[in-house]
Amino acid sequence: MNTFGQKLRATIFGASHGEYVGITIDGYPAGVAIDGSLIRKRLDQRRGMTAVTSKRREPDEYKIISGLFNGLTTGAPLTVLVSNRDVDSAPYRENYGIARPSHADYVYYHKYRGHADYRGGGTASGRMTVVLVILGALCEQLLAGKNIIVASRIKELGGVKDGEFDPEEKALRTLREEAFPAVSSEAREKMLEKIALTAAGGDSLGGIAETYALNLPIGLGEPFFDGVESLIARLVFSVPGVKGVEFGAGFALAGMTGSVANDEMSYENGRVAYHSNNAGGINGGLSNGAPLVFRTAFRPTPSISRPQKTVNFIEKTNVTTSVTGRHDTVIAIKGLHAVNALALYAIAELMAREGAF
Amino acid sequence: MNTFGQKLRATIFGASHGEYVGITIDGYPAGVAIDGSLIRKRLDQRRGMTAVTSKRREPDEYKIISGLFNGLTTGAPLTVLVSNRDVDSAPYRENYGIARPSHADYVYYHKYRGHADYRGGGTASGRMTVVLVILGALCEQLLAGKNIIVASRIKELGGVKDGEFDPEEKALRTLREEAFPAVSSEAREKMLEKIALTAAGGDSLGGIAETYALNLPIGLGEPFFDGVESLIARLVFSVPGVKGVEFGAGFALAGMTGSVANDEMSYENGRVAYHSNNAGGINGGLSNGAPLVFRTAFRPTPSISRPQKTVNFIEKTNVTTSVTGRHDTVIAIKGLHAVNALALYAIAELMAREGAF
Amino acid sequence: MNTFGQKLRATIFGASHGEYVGITIDGYPAGVAIDGSLIRKRLDQRRGMTAVTSKRREPDEYKIISGLFNGLTTGAPLTVLVSNRDVDSAPYRENYGIARPSHADYVYYHKYRGHADYRGGGTASGRMTVVLVILGALCEQLLAGKNIIVASRIKELGGVKDGEFDPEEKALRTLREEAFPAVSSEAREKMLEKIALTAAGGDSLGGIAETYALNLPIGLGEPFFDGVESLIARLVFSVPGVKGVEFGAGFALAGMTGSVANDEMSYENGRVAYHSNNAGGINGGLSNGAPLVFRTAFRPTPSISRPQKTVNFIEKTNVTTSVTGRHDTVIAIKGLHAVNALALYAIAELMAREGAF
Amino acid sequence: MNTFGQKLRATIFGASHGEYVGITIDGYPAGVAIDGSLIRKRLDQRRGMTAVTSKRREPDEYKIISGLFNGLTTGAPLTVLVSNRDVDSAPYRENYGIARPSHADYVYYHKYRGHADYRGGGTASGRMTVVLVILGALCEQLLAGKNIIVASRIKELGGVKDGEFDPEEKALRTLREEAFPAVSSEAREKMLEKIALTAAGGDSLGGIAETYALNLPIGLGEPFFDGVESLIARLVFSVPGVKGVEFGAGFALAGMTGSVANDEMSYENGRVAYHSNNAGGINGGLSNGAPLVFRTAFRPTPSISRPQKTVNFIEKTNVTTSVTGRHDTVIAIKGLHAVNALALYAIAELMAREGAF
Repeated sequence: MNTFGQKLRATIFGASHGEYVGITIDGYPAGVAIDGSLIRKRLDQRRGMTAVTSKRREPDEYKIISGLFNGLTTGAPLTVLVSNRDVDSAPYRENYGIARPSHADYVYYHKYRGHADYRGGGTASGRMTVVLVILGALCEQLLAGKNIIVASRIKELGGVKDGEFDPEEKALRTLREEAFPAVSSEAREKMLEKIALTAAGGDSLGGIAETYALNLPIGLGEPFFDGVESLIARLVFSVPGVKGVEFGAGFALAGMTGSVANDEMSYENGRVAYHSNNAGGINGGLSNGAPLVFRTAFRPTPSISRPQKTVNFIEKTNVTTSVTGRHDTVIAIKGLHAVNALALYAIAELMAREGAF
Repeated sequence: MNTFGQKLRATIFGASHGEYVGITIDGYPAGVAIDGSLIRKRLDQRRGMTAVTSKRREPDEYKIISGLFNGLTTGAPLTVLVSNRDVDSAPYRENYGIARPSHADYVYYHKYRGHADYRGGGTASGRMTVVLVILGALCEQLLAGKNIIVASRIKELGGVKDGEFDPEEKALRTLREEAFPAVSSEAREKMLEKIALTAAGGDSLGGIAETYALNLPIGLGEPFFDGVESLIARLVFSVPGVKGVEFGAGFALAGMTGSVANDEMSYENGRVAYHSNNAGGINGGLSNGAPLVFRTAFRPTPSISRPQKTVNFIEKTNVTTSVTGRHDTVIAIKGLHAVNALALYAIAELMAREGAF
Repeated sequence: MNTFGQKLRATIFGASHGEYVGITIDGYPAGVAIDGSLIRKRLDQRRGMTAVTSKRREPDEYKIISGLFNGLTTGAPLTVLVSNRDVDSAPYRENYGIARPSHADYVYYHKYRGHADYRGGGTASGRMTVVLVILGALCEQLLAGKNIIVASRIKELGGVKDGEFDPEEKALRTLREEAFPAVSSEAREKMLEKIALTAAGGDSLGGIAETYALNLPIGLGEPFFDGVESLIARLVFSVPGVKGVEFGAGFALAGMTGSVANDEMSYENGRVAYHSNNAGGINGGLSNGAPLVFRTAFRPTPSISRPQKTVNFIEKTNVTTSVTGRHDTVIAIKGLHAVNALALYAIAELMAREGAF
Repeated sequence: MNTFGQKLRATIFGASHGEYVGITIDGYPAGVAIDGSLIRKRLDQRRGMTAVTSKRREPDEYKIISGLFNGLTTGAPLTVLVSNRDVDSAPYRENYGIARPSHADYVYYHKYRGHADYRGGGTASGRMTVVLVILGALCEQLLAGKNIIVASRIKELGGVKDGEFDPEEKALRTLREEAFPAVSSEAREKMLEKIALTAAGGDSLGGIAETYALNLPIGLGEPFFDGVESLIARLVFSVPGVKGVEFGAGFALAGMTGSVANDEMSYENGRVAYHSNNAGGINGGLSNGAPLVFRTAFRPTPSISRPQKTVNFIEKTNVTTSVTGRHDTVIAIKGLHAVNALALYAIAELMAREGAF
């Protein structure tokens, strides 16, 4: 359903071309001074790469209509609404019935027996990630007090790989503030070129986001079904376009031997240190003190203007379609910000269960 | 926590060297004739590759102590106990305090302030998958009546890749019955050789399982956080040793363009057919009628007899350890059966939500 | 928390003097034509006895901002906002710190460490029942198609008892449409007189609502913690001012013998008939085919203008207070409409679990 | 379903005449030394009034099969099994199809389409309360460390009323240890006489339990649906035979004016004191510092040997039945111990949510 969390229970609502998208967060602690400028910054960051992302120009005006009083949270549910302003539903109405390949049009039609709001993809739209970003910003404020930092970078895009990276605190804080974060500025330039070229050709690109979290308490996560990997994977796979999630060395571990894959340990300055981090900071589902590291694979944007074969499920005919409209060439970029937000949320939820706030 | 599911609510309990491991499934429909021989077969299959898996010899005797009356389910919770018989806790007692690298010893010690049952890994043990296999067999009976088939194969192991495979019904039914399922018997032989060689060298191997599900109803899954990918990923990441999950073309999608990645569609014989299946049968989190396909990456077994550097967290010293005892060289093999079971469970849970049973 | 339900998951938000009170209902079926006039009617009915209820004049303007498209539900969460317009927060600001006796001022202050929104009682306000009434109206539409009728009457108010009543369909439909439902018009007049007299004296009154539901499917409810009585009691006790709930003969059963209390049965016209209904239509937590009957005890409105001894918990002093402002003399009247709504909700939730919609 | 709780998640299983009844408690803190003698004592107390309760002689042997290691909890789920030994299923088999009036036979038959385990009432049996008593004893250990005391007395039985009572600590500790707790020994004698007389006549009696809890933290409970009253009522209504629950002055409040009903307050020795406790220690769903007080109405045992009219739902005939077998004359007595247990559980669950353990 549209609800997640036991202690920080988030419920999302609204649709891409409805009046609002929104979120209610129940269980958020009382007495927190909500930093509106942080929410604003995170929203702008998500929207920021407008040169390479959607041409839909949303100011993302939000308002908090519940749970805030005199600038502080009250302990009542936080409800936030974000207006949808720059919507153009006409093309969706005209093309209704034509299943855009690799979109949810057909399955939603089927599941809701023709009643789903199809405009702009309805609820199966990247637009929903705007409320996830707000959720993330609200969790970021809780976690900042615990010195926890979450940041991501584009690890790979259109075949271009970003450089090597050692996730230390300062570098992560820098990455955290970028709309299109990459370690190597050269790689970043090549990616942008690739995007421009692909967009010009009416096509789209996939990408991989790599996410880090520092300073998690040791032992975070719960057995059996609520390990850190389980919760993050569930949340991240809910972001439109995600098709793979791996932790630490991930799929590469499958080709290793144990003697290579295992992370040896020793005490250094009185703390347990890991000589490698193939486990991505997680053993047995629980955080082990090393940086949390995971990667998310995003498929290319399914909306492309190149002609594609598909069906009209109303008329039951085979057709060729070309998806015009204003679409991101790469969903991985906005997607990365949604992943950051959900990683923050998963961590905050698990820490709330431990009584941290 | 140790509970999952809304309609088929499973709660697991017990520990590796406790008297039992067990599971309670609440919400299982009344009036189902439980096929004990199927449960037996699935348990034997999981345990089957004893040449290459753990030397612990468990008969896996199970009994159903709740929810069954005259051979039929009553609608009350199904509780199943499995005895742990062939346990040897002595080495665990002797080595208590030494963190086996990439095991959960240290994080469990930390989380439970020294109170976790450390014998045999306690609850963070592959032993827990025995109850998942029972859960899977119980769901398999529900789904068999809907003609849904779930099967997996070892896609890759120790660098050896299995052959190409077209997931059609008959082939899947064959794979389903094997303890070490692979498409190419040649690849399978090479894998077994690799395992033998590695075991002899005191090391271990990782692997990748590829899982298929046929004949899912179109539109299965729920937005936003309860899509098919989200639920399967959460469950599969709870299996010990899993470090990556990808659907359809998965991480490879990140390097494609949309025109290559998109699955074109057309009506064939009155039904929607997909010209490719890069989405792995899922659009927008919902099943689209194509076969569900996903891959699970398993790390190598962390228990190896080669010497490794680690810490003694009781004595706060650096030590070198060599994990003796009876361990699977490859956890991916038993793991594959747990993944099958959890895929069956995820599908049954989502279908139960739709009122299918 | 502010969330209830597994299949029809309701989350309420907002506060008495905030911009809105609101509700999100996740899991509401797609394709239902929402009858706005029914919602309007139920809201007006709740507000209707303005002569005897609060002087706060709220138009209760609502809008559905999610889940509705072309007048039909889409299957996405239904979110409804209701504006708070006629608020006067000044007295609350002036008297902040003075615990109104039998109000939640002191406990909320304590629980939320001074951060709760105290204006109008914040979230601990009868104002929240407006969204429950909307929830009820939305469930009423689902249940009307199943011929299920829920209605209540004021059984007792200020010592005046309503007349005898046989809950048959037509009479219940009539009661359902009244703002101040009672069977005996004479009793109703006396109650109104009593209210007027009490209000003039600066005091308030309690009352008992009796609620009926007809045509429930036999076997509704779930063991062990989700019986019909358990769910209704949990929901009804969440309505401000409720201090008792009893089913069938309720507390009177404690003074009976089994031979008197038991409801004998026989087949009449092929259906099981009950010779009495001391069980209130519920055996073992499940509906038995007889009318569901329960009673809810409401305390008198705690806000009274008579002087009362209490504390100022900011200044830590003992004070005498007189609660002025615009308050219902009897919360049982609006409360009755909230109980109706929650009974409809409990029934719809349990039927949804059975796959009824 | 058979599960309750968010932080202390209890799942019950088994049936009256199955091999076991059992419970799993997930979320119980690690490192607690389980006092088996307390569990034993509470089980014996529940069973204690064998002169007036069921003639079924169960030793109530229990064993903890999960979550305990070296006498301390491990943080893994606690699973406890209790054997059913003294069962006589023959009469149930012989009379299958005859609906015992006011029992769940008919509704269970209907709900589970004939598959419910009918022996001894299956899961709709007072036998299930044995695991609730274990749950209560486990929670009692958590709460004892917080100085929280829960105790009940029989307030009324067969028309005999117990004496006046001021719930102070020492008196409650005494009541807590009795199998048939009453304040007035004279009233207690009269009740026992009444029971003997009624039993001799082949009939049964109802009763009212009154429950107290001292030293709850102020502000315990959560809005909106998770207030103390809501949670306790939901749990208590799940006990077989409960038909009414009221807090503080309860139904009597409905006949009061606000000036009488309101609990005035003042500071005494620096703490807020209440001049009366009509609210039963709860305002706005949250504990206010006064003793928690509530009453539970139990119907008479439905199993009576006097002849009653009913149906045979298999043969679809009208019959006269006389329920022989070994039944409590008063379910309120064992029921009281179940209510104690569930009150302890509700308090522990709510405190766990606040991070108390």
